[in-house]
Amino acid sequence: MAGATEPLDALSARWPRWVGELADFVAIPSVSSDPRRRGDIQRAADWLRARLRALGMSRASLVQTPGNPVVWAEWTTPGAASRVLMYGHYDVVTPGGRTEWHSPPFLPVARGGFLYGRGASDDKGPVVAQLAALDAWLSTRGRLPVNVTCLFEGEEEIGSPHLRALLRHRRPVARGPVFDAAVISDTRMLGPGLPTLVTGLRGSLAAELEVRGPRRDVHSGAFGGAIRNPAHVLAELIASLHDGAGRVSIAGFYRDVRPPGRDRFEGQPVARIITAQLLAQGGPRIAFGEPGFSTYERTAQRPALDVNGIEAGHTGPGAKGVIPARATAKLSFRLVPDQDPRRVAVLLRRHLARRLPRGVRLRTSFSKPVLPVTIDPFTPAAHAARAALEAGFGRAPALLDSGGTIPVVESFATRVGTPVLMGFARPDDGMHGPDERVDLSALAAGSRSLVHFLALMSKPAVHGVTSRSLTPPRVGAIA
Amino acid sequence: MAGATEPLDALSARWPRWVGELADFVAIPSVSSDPRRRGDIQRAADWLRARLRALGMSRASLVQTPGNPVVWAEWTTPGAASRVLMYGHYDVVTPGGRTEWHSPPFLPVARGGFLYGRGASDDKGPVVAQLAALDAWLSTRGRLPVNVTCLFEGEEEIGSPHLRALLRHRRPVARGPVFDAAVISDTRMLGPGLPTLVTGLRGSLAAELEVRGPRRDVHSGAFGGAIRNPAHVLAELIASLHDGAGRVSIAGFYRDVRPPGRDRFEGQPVARIITAQLLAQGGPRIAFGEPGFSTYERTAQRPALDVNGIEAGHTGPGAKGVIPARATAKLSFRLVPDQDPRRVAVLLRRHLARRLPRGVRLRTSFSKPVLPVTIDPFTPAAHAARAALEAGFGRAPALLDSGGTIPVVESFATRVGTPVLMGFARPDDGMHGPDERVDLSALAAGSRSLVHFLALMSKPAVHGVTSRSLTPPRVGAIA
Repeated sequence: MAGATEPLDALSARWPRWVGELADFVAIPSVSSDPRRRGDIQRAADWLRARLRALGMSRASLVQTPGNPVVWAEWTTPGAASRVLMYGHYDVVTPGGRTEWHSPPFLPVARGGFLYGRGASDDKGPVVAQLAALDAWLSTRGRLPVNVTCLFEGEEEIGSPHLRALLRHRRPVARGPVFDAAVISDTRMLGPGLPTLVTGLRGSLAAELEVRGPRRDVHSGAFGGAIRNPAHVLAELIASLHDGAGRVSIAGFYRDVRPPGRDRFEGQPVARIITAQLLAQGGPRIAFGEPGFSTYERTAQRPALDVNGIEAGHTGPGAKGVIPARATAKLSFRLVPDQDPRRVAVLLRRHLARRLPRGVRLRTSFSKPVLPVTIDPFTPAAHAARAALEAGFGRAPALLDSGGTIPVVESFATRVGTPVLMGFARPDDGMHGPDERVDLSALAAGSRSLVHFLALMSKPAVHGVTSRSLTPPRVGAIA
Repeated sequence: MAGATEPLDALSARWPRWVGELADFVAIPSVSSDPRRRGDIQRAADWLRARLRALGMSRASLVQTPGNPVVWAEWTTPGAASRVLMYGHYDVVTPGGRTEWHSPPFLPVARGGFLYGRGASDDKGPVVAQLAALDAWLSTRGRLPVNVTCLFEGEEEIGSPHLRALLRHRRPVARGPVFDAAVISDTRMLGPGLPTLVTGLRGSLAAELEVRGPRRDVHSGAFGGAIRNPAHVLAELIASLHDGAGRVSIAGFYRDVRPPGRDRFEGQPVARIITAQLLAQGGPRIAFGEPGFSTYERTAQRPALDVNGIEAGHTGPGAKGVIPARATAKLSFRLVPDQDPRRVAVLLRRHLARRLPRGVRLRTSFSKPVLPVTIDPFTPAAHAARAALEAGFGRAPALLDSGGTIPVVESFATRVGTPVLMGFARPDDGMHGPDERVDLSALAAGSRSLVHFLALMSKPAVHGVTSRSLTPPRVGAIA
């Protein structure tokens, strides 16, 4: 890969500036779930568009949607051998309780080789790694080795409700797969220093339950013992969703689950590493789940249902004798092939309706339906990605089924181009939790990998490679 | 009761001024459960002391405790036939969610004969009714008909942790019952226009449960299905506390419950009114509870356990894919004779420990242990209270077992003097809920009743009355 020497040198030289840019980007609290952050969403989109313009990309613009804008830019190299889509998102999840953060979530701080702040690893750091890779080529060669379209959305964390419609309607994307690869750097690595190509993603479905009882909060002295307490009913409904062994109790839930491919390419090392990471979150007794499956299978190849939040009545300091008028819970399913979120929604509604006692009302709403996907690691684009990751990190990548969800991947796979899931977040980066951070050296290696990837995609030879001619992944080496 | 004509006229004339004083008092956000409100607690105590001084009471002062100060004042009339304690509290519960209030909780507003604001009926309105009654006597006669001590505390809503110690240690209160009556106006009436003497109070015990799982919130995509979710465990623990019929499932919980006195003086009308009030909170299907008991028995003569609040994970707008690190619940027991809160705490701990699964930790803490009490309605003080209520409201009072809890009543009964529970809040006044209010005409009638009560307590004849010579309560008249 001598052809990329100059861009790689430029990347090294210009990297500190990109770290500074990342800090600016993280400082924008672009929380997509919070309507009060609309202005920050716009600021983050404007920030990205300005960077793409400064790189010299053409048609750098904001594509308006009924929700948050999509940042769009293109580069055309006449006669280029392939077309690559670079995807990322500029929105972040809410930081949650400030007291759990050691530094304010939107005042990024560099410490010990990490940059801390909400969105540092999910997904602003990887987006900046993409920008830096484009910059490395453009600043040295004045062109990119392939045609590139950048597409950065602002609604990934709320289920990409408008991007999928955009992909259906907007040219040139609408006319079937038009890209040879759709690079998504919103996934995590198997571990620190372990580059990873993700080969599967779980789908998702979010649900919100609201149990309503008395017209308003009432005094638990005056009424305690004589009316249904919505908090009790909600607890009973939640408790009914799993059996004691950790299996989901909703009738028919497992019907469409494809039997796990026990002979998949992943070996024991991946499972061991995943298990070790899980135990690091809470000690040796924390592992728990569906009987008959390993921790790795539970996290990535089996479906799951989790309560993400509950709220009822008095939650401030001290005691308050009330029976709450309402109790709410946020739930999320993680789904695997061939489960369909719409069918799961029907099953949940039926399960709850059968168990709802008299005297309370239940409202159930759904969001974020996303189909699960499996990605073939033996396509030409996947081959280029694996070679690029090995070149960038100095080590062959692991292949990993991920338990997470990226809403657009399924749309990409069917309409846009082969998804290439090469992400640079570490499992201990605290994505979605407090003290989110990104490992700046992993991000630099990721950016180098992207420089290589663009070079590799420019070689027509890549496109003739078949799965049989590929080296098997050297997963064993990383254990 | 011709002897009270002049004070009653003065009360009428000066009442509008006392309504204005009440608005000032309600405007002080003296929330005792919130440490940030310490300054407001002090302001409320100072406000009360200033009013007592202005009335001409002696020794008006703040008695310091390890917590919030007790406001104290005395009046001595040489040769008086009896000594009366007037008790109330100047602290309030937290207002909760502002959006549920139609006007800000600490900006009192008069509307339709009510004054709205947190504490209007619990307990600032009744305290002002007491002050107004004292003022009626002092401004016309220059003296009170009996010896009076005022004791207004600032920790009633958090279980009166220091007042009970004060009653044990402070002279002259410490030397056994030294008052002929301890008037507590912190109870509710059976209904609008229905004066009420309360004859029983449930005890209480508050508990806080905290289930801890992973070290911090983790991504539900990465870990969902493979670790114990503390929110699930909390829901299962809460669900285990009741059976499907509404009976508390904690082993041994009902052991010490005294069999209900089916032949108690309450007739069907009270039960019918209580049931109607409960149904008004949520429609015909809301009534639910321990089988074999009426709604009235469930609210007042049977114990209960309610979840007052639950909190876990993400509770803000939108979805967030996390497994929460912790889940908490606030519970409160309402207890009846002869249950002991300390024993109930032991039973709850045992119940939870048996059901706690591996992989999570549970912390349980307790507060507000208060013994249940039953008060004889045929004592001389109770007779005076009933006559005073009839004179003040123009209608014989109902006798009512209340489901609520007033921490100090049990200490009063054993150490201070016969508790006389004559309160002026209506059941629909929203105590502890949003839009708390007080019916100003009920408060005025209550204040008139207190003017009469002081006169009646000055007559030695009252003390010779036995229960057999009393008219039976005319409960039937109010149905």
